[in-house]
Amino acid sequence: MAATTERVKQILSWYGSDSPGTLANLHRMLMTGRLAGTGKLVILPVDQGFEHGPARSFAPNPAGYDPDYHFQLAIDSGCNAYAAPLGFIEAGAAKFAGQIPLILKVNNSDSLGKPPAPISAVTSSVKEAVRLGCSAIGYTIYPGSSARNQQYESLRQLTEEAKANGLVVVVWSYPRGEGVSKDGETAVDVAAYAAQIACQLGAHIVKVKPPKIHLEQAEAKKVYEKQQIPIASLAERVRHVVQSSFGGKRIVIFSGGEAKGTDEVLAEIKELASGGAFGSIMGRNAFQRPKAEAIKLLNDVQDIFAKAK
Amino acid sequence: MAATTERVKQILSWYGSDSPGTLANLHRMLMTGRLAGTGKLVILPVDQGFEHGPARSFAPNPAGYDPDYHFQLAIDSGCNAYAAPLGFIEAGAAKFAGQIPLILKVNNSDSLGKPPAPISAVTSSVKEAVRLGCSAIGYTIYPGSSARNQQYESLRQLTEEAKANGLVVVVWSYPRGEGVSKDGETAVDVAAYAAQIACQLGAHIVKVKPPKIHLEQAEAKKVYEKQQIPIASLAERVRHVVQSSFGGKRIVIFSGGEAKGTDEVLAEIKELASGGAFGSIMGRNAFQRPKAEAIKLLNDVQDIFAKAK
Amino acid sequence: MAATTERVKQILSWYGSDSPGTLANLHRMLMTGRLAGTGKLVILPVDQGFEHGPARSFAPNPAGYDPDYHFQLAIDSGCNAYAAPLGFIEAGAAKFAGQIPLILKVNNSDSLGKPPAPISAVTSSVKEAVRLGCSAIGYTIYPGSSARNQQYESLRQLTEEAKANGLVVVVWSYPRGEGVSKDGETAVDVAAYAAQIACQLGAHIVKVKPPKIHLEQAEAKKVYEKQQIPIASLAERVRHVVQSSFGGKRIVIFSGGEAKGTDEVLAEIKELASGGAFGSIMGRNAFQRPKAEAIKLLNDVQDIFAKAK
Amino acid sequence: MAATTERVKQILSWYGSDSPGTLANLHRMLMTGRLAGTGKLVILPVDQGFEHGPARSFAPNPAGYDPDYHFQLAIDSGCNAYAAPLGFIEAGAAKFAGQIPLILKVNNSDSLGKPPAPISAVTSSVKEAVRLGCSAIGYTIYPGSSARNQQYESLRQLTEEAKANGLVVVVWSYPRGEGVSKDGETAVDVAAYAAQIACQLGAHIVKVKPPKIHLEQAEAKKVYEKQQIPIASLAERVRHVVQSSFGGKRIVIFSGGEAKGTDEVLAEIKELASGGAFGSIMGRNAFQRPKAEAIKLLNDVQDIFAKAK
Amino acid sequence: MAATTERVKQILSWYGSDSPGTLANLHRMLMTGRLAGTGKLVILPVDQGFEHGPARSFAPNPAGYDPDYHFQLAIDSGCNAYAAPLGFIEAGAAKFAGQIPLILKVNNSDSLGKPPAPISAVTSSVKEAVRLGCSAIGYTIYPGSSARNQQYESLRQLTEEAKANGLVVVVWSYPRGEGVSKDGETAVDVAAYAAQIACQLGAHIVKVKPPKIHLEQAEAKKVYEKQQIPIASLAERVRHVVQSSFGGKRIVIFSGGEAKGTDEVLAEIKELASGGAFGSIMGRNAFQRPKAEAIKLLNDVQDIFAKAK
Repeated sequence: MAATTERVKQILSWYGSDSPGTLANLHRMLMTGRLAGTGKLVILPVDQGFEHGPARSFAPNPAGYDPDYHFQLAIDSGCNAYAAPLGFIEAGAAKFAGQIPLILKVNNSDSLGKPPAPISAVTSSVKEAVRLGCSAIGYTIYPGSSARNQQYESLRQLTEEAKANGLVVVVWSYPRGEGVSKDGETAVDVAAYAAQIACQLGAHIVKVKPPKIHLEQAEAKKVYEKQQIPIASLAERVRHVVQSSFGGKRIVIFSGGEAKGTDEVLAEIKELASGGAFGSIMGRNAFQRPKAEAIKLLNDVQDIFAKAK
Repeated sequence: MAATTERVKQILSWYGSDSPGTLANLHRMLMTGRLAGTGKLVILPVDQGFEHGPARSFAPNPAGYDPDYHFQLAIDSGCNAYAAPLGFIEAGAAKFAGQIPLILKVNNSDSLGKPPAPISAVTSSVKEAVRLGCSAIGYTIYPGSSARNQQYESLRQLTEEAKANGLVVVVWSYPRGEGVSKDGETAVDVAAYAAQIACQLGAHIVKVKPPKIHLEQAEAKKVYEKQQIPIASLAERVRHVVQSSFGGKRIVIFSGGEAKGTDEVLAEIKELASGGAFGSIMGRNAFQRPKAEAIKLLNDVQDIFAKAK
Repeated sequence: MAATTERVKQILSWYGSDSPGTLANLHRMLMTGRLAGTGKLVILPVDQGFEHGPARSFAPNPAGYDPDYHFQLAIDSGCNAYAAPLGFIEAGAAKFAGQIPLILKVNNSDSLGKPPAPISAVTSSVKEAVRLGCSAIGYTIYPGSSARNQQYESLRQLTEEAKANGLVVVVWSYPRGEGVSKDGETAVDVAAYAAQIACQLGAHIVKVKPPKIHLEQAEAKKVYEKQQIPIASLAERVRHVVQSSFGGKRIVIFSGGEAKGTDEVLAEIKELASGGAFGSIMGRNAFQRPKAEAIKLLNDVQDIFAKAK
Repeated sequence: MAATTERVKQILSWYGSDSPGTLANLHRMLMTGRLAGTGKLVILPVDQGFEHGPARSFAPNPAGYDPDYHFQLAIDSGCNAYAAPLGFIEAGAAKFAGQIPLILKVNNSDSLGKPPAPISAVTSSVKEAVRLGCSAIGYTIYPGSSARNQQYESLRQLTEEAKANGLVVVVWSYPRGEGVSKDGETAVDVAAYAAQIACQLGAHIVKVKPPKIHLEQAEAKKVYEKQQIPIASLAERVRHVVQSSFGGKRIVIFSGGEAKGTDEVLAEIKELASGGAFGSIMGRNAFQRPKAEAIKLLNDVQDIFAKAK
Repeated sequence: MAATTERVKQILSWYGSDSPGTLANLHRMLMTGRLAGTGKLVILPVDQGFEHGPARSFAPNPAGYDPDYHFQLAIDSGCNAYAAPLGFIEAGAAKFAGQIPLILKVNNSDSLGKPPAPISAVTSSVKEAVRLGCSAIGYTIYPGSSARNQQYESLRQLTEEAKANGLVVVVWSYPRGEGVSKDGETAVDVAAYAAQIACQLGAHIVKVKPPKIHLEQAEAKKVYEKQQIPIASLAERVRHVVQSSFGGKRIVIFSGGEAKGTDEVLAEIKELASGGAFGSIMGRNAFQRPKAEAIKLLNDVQDIFAKAK
């Protein structure tokens, strides 16, 4: 393994209250793959089989029906980590043991009908993450949902247990539900708030969507205008979200949104990197392509982050 | 006991994250009965006494009122395992100890009135399964039900405990409820999705109904048409469901549906076998006939699977 | 104590999965009182103070306000066991220790207003039953109630704990609620189904009401007519309920219904005994009479069962 | 300490199933204060700060804002015990340790808005009662409330734990809610029923309100008329409630109702004593007077009970 | 550390039932900062990032995005303690270990939509408070909310666990919800009642808002008028709230309300100090100013309290 860089040491210093076990797992994620040592992360997540169903997820590239495929893709493309629900992780955890840090996504929701409020089922546990040799758990919260308090409390228990077991906690923070409008789900004030909530709940790594220029909350809008917070470009909005994550002292990564074409994807990644994002999490845009193309895309993304700052 | 076949070893290799205890119980199920070593399974389930009441279940063949009858039928017909609720298992577990692998069906629903959403009561536990010498627990989920998250979470706890105790987990995945139409319950996209969900929740063995040609979800339909997924014949649909179960790396078995006549049953089984199904679970069609006829039917079904591939 | 009879040994053999502790307590109940050794049971239950209030229960025979009275009545009349809620059991458990097997009725409902669905409060526990030297716990389920799943799950926990502590489980199975009509509560198909459910939930002893000739469920009715199940006389209906209880391999006893006059009571008991009932549970008809009359009645009932078969 | 009297020994004999620890605490309550040894109890309860707010409770006699005041009042007036919520008990438990038996009132309700059904919050625990050196816990149930089953189950857990820790259980049984009319809350049939329920739930000491001549429940009314139960005078009604409490084998005490003037209070106490009440619990009528007057009143009440029978 | 003053010893004497561990932490809070030894407290709370979002909280003084800033501000301004949610505390607990007593605010609510009733999510735990070296936990209750019983019960568990772990319990008592009008939220009778409830629930330190002259509850109003309780000035109302907190034997501190200008803030503080308040908790008015100004303001506030009485 390469020597730990100063940048990685700096990042670890922000998590001074965490145990050596958790720091070691965070170190593992930051020192794996093509971005090892840069302080940047590109993560492969594959939960679409649960979220959207198998055909919608894997028929475009049927190799992806097989759980082994995604472990190998994450390894071959030099990602920092691979994230998936229990079944997919369990299917390869022994075979690929130690080859790539694993994030067990412990809650999930399917699209066979909708529950009253945006809320996921807890489908796995810290105990299982430990058994399967994972470095982290992943959990989705929906700020704005009427069920959010229940989610925060569920996350609280998982976070406490994860930290006591030396794991890293990754929080997907997706505003949704009756407390926000459709546009508000990606509004920059809401995105920054969602990142703040995840940090306050004790997340080590926060994942949000790229924020749009919309301002959702009237009280917040007044402040943005009075303080002239720059939000015109995506890079500026990303910088604001990073600042809102404890002044940049928490790792914030961004999903690829709905962009489809390669050029669009890479253009967006450049903005993210320019705004100080710690990295990206890229699923469908990667695993639905043929493997060689997926590796090329992930590598291009990594190169953009490697060059940033 | 016969020597473990290469096929059984291959199947066990897909469950590499499981404990030796669970692998031994899975091995037990795959190496029992007339299909031992083939990698195929025919299971006798008798939960109709709870689900439909005693007269509807057992009056056609009153020998079935006696719990001993079903143990003996499963043994004499060379089935791989016998599945039933607590009461029936408890009644014979000592008398027939070790003669046939047992699946304790740990949730059940009766038909004396309906609860608001399709949901079963948890009527037994992993602890009881261990006490009674069972090889597996069985659990029914209803994807599409508004109560599905609660079911997934209940299953999560049972699955974790079952694996920690060296048991196999069999999941009955039956789409039902406000999230799917009546036709949608057996639509091929929904059936494939239901199998995927069960796999992602950590099931070792998944049981679904034979899928029909209907496509339920608009988003999925687009993909099936664009990717030209073959679903015209039952065998093709079964093959798709098997592929949707981790690329065929999870055991998927099918119920006999509502077919009644012997010819119809066997014709359907041939399609299942031809599509790559790992086997069948057959209750009423077996135990409501006189014993000799039931054994003949189960043996015919086994022979079809034995000859497949 | 008299030598264990062949009949008692046969009955115990049906409970082969149970621990020696549970078998010993079942043996104790079957070998106590005037019916000792016959395989028949007459039990005195006194939960009316909780269910209907003190004056309605005890004013007709004010000696019954005193909890000691009922212990002594059960002993003096040669009953197999005495069943009551926590308070009544606790009041005499030390004073009458060892003189009569005790059934702690662990759930109860009062009649000061009605909850939304038929459901009882859990008012005691297995731990208390053990502390008080009881041989069994008693629990009421209401099949047909929208709250039945909750009841089954509560019973599941109690049953598991009771068996782990060597206790016997007696289930009062009373169909009631939105899933059945008023007549349906005692319909023979529903009564048989209620007995089956209790058995499948792991009950050692099931208590139902004497079934009436009504058939409630359309699907069941077809089967009763097609299979020509005899239900014309009470004895025939009782025989059907006993058969529905695992082919007669579970102990099924019957309450006295609403009959009041002594002649009516005894006429009904004769039908029950003739139909193969394992016994009777008789409360108000006993303890609301002067003690001598109550003993006479209970003895007459016992004599009928003693002579049966 | 004075020698244990025959009457106290007799009372303790009714609680034969209880542990020596619980009997010792009951003994402590019966052998403390000016009524020591008589088998009668006068208890000072101060939960009005929580129930009605501080000014309504303590402004009439501002010394009562200070928690020490009530400990000293209970001691100086020769009461058997002092009952209060966690905060008040905690404030003086160390300072007055051992000087007066304490009853920790473990549930309470405030009057800042009303919850849907009469129900209190559980504000303390058996563990805290043990830590604070209390002799008993106190708990309020509301028979007739749609939430009563939840209350009974909460009490069940507390009672079991209290007994396992050698504490006494005092139950305030106050009919209220949709199951009873406003008049019905103090109807004699309902009061007797409420006392019975508390006894059946395992209470050692029951507290009810003085019953009025009203009969609430139609079914009960028939029995009271047929059996000619005497209920014309308060003393008769009290005697009936005491009889309804296990034939007088459970300690039943009465609150002072809403009476205000000293003469009225004492007249009512005389009726209670004459009817066989085991004592009285008197809060506002005591602590809202100047201390000397309060002591005089409590002593007068004690004297009435001392002279009774 | 300076010698413990007589005043601090007196205050500690009111908490005689608490463990040495809890007393030591309370002592730590009372003996820290510029007010050490006076018995007064000024606390810096920073939970606005969670409650109102990051931009509304920190954009006016962007240094506050960084969690380290607030630790240093609390230390440099000579506060007694610093209070914040899990994320903020965790971010600096190691770096600033031992430099300032910490209060872990264990429940929080955001403003991305509102749940049905005023209720916060439990976002941390006593176990985490212990791990992070905190001296206290903080918890908000909403008396008047229909969900208040749930909150009291949650607080009860936390309080019991906190005391068993030697922590101090600080309760924010904010009347709100369907049980009080908008004006009633700060009515003096309601504020006094809210303080009383927090004390009865076992709080060591209570935080309320400065009470207004409004009287909310009809029953209370009668008493205030009859007893002529002085409530004309803020100082008088504060004195009444302090009296309502166990006759002044519980520490009661006040928030700064909505005052904005420095003069207004200091004028209000003078009234609080004059009325006997134990101190103040001041967040936005402090951390949203430039650091030097914030220190000046906090020092001025401290000086007022230091001079009081």
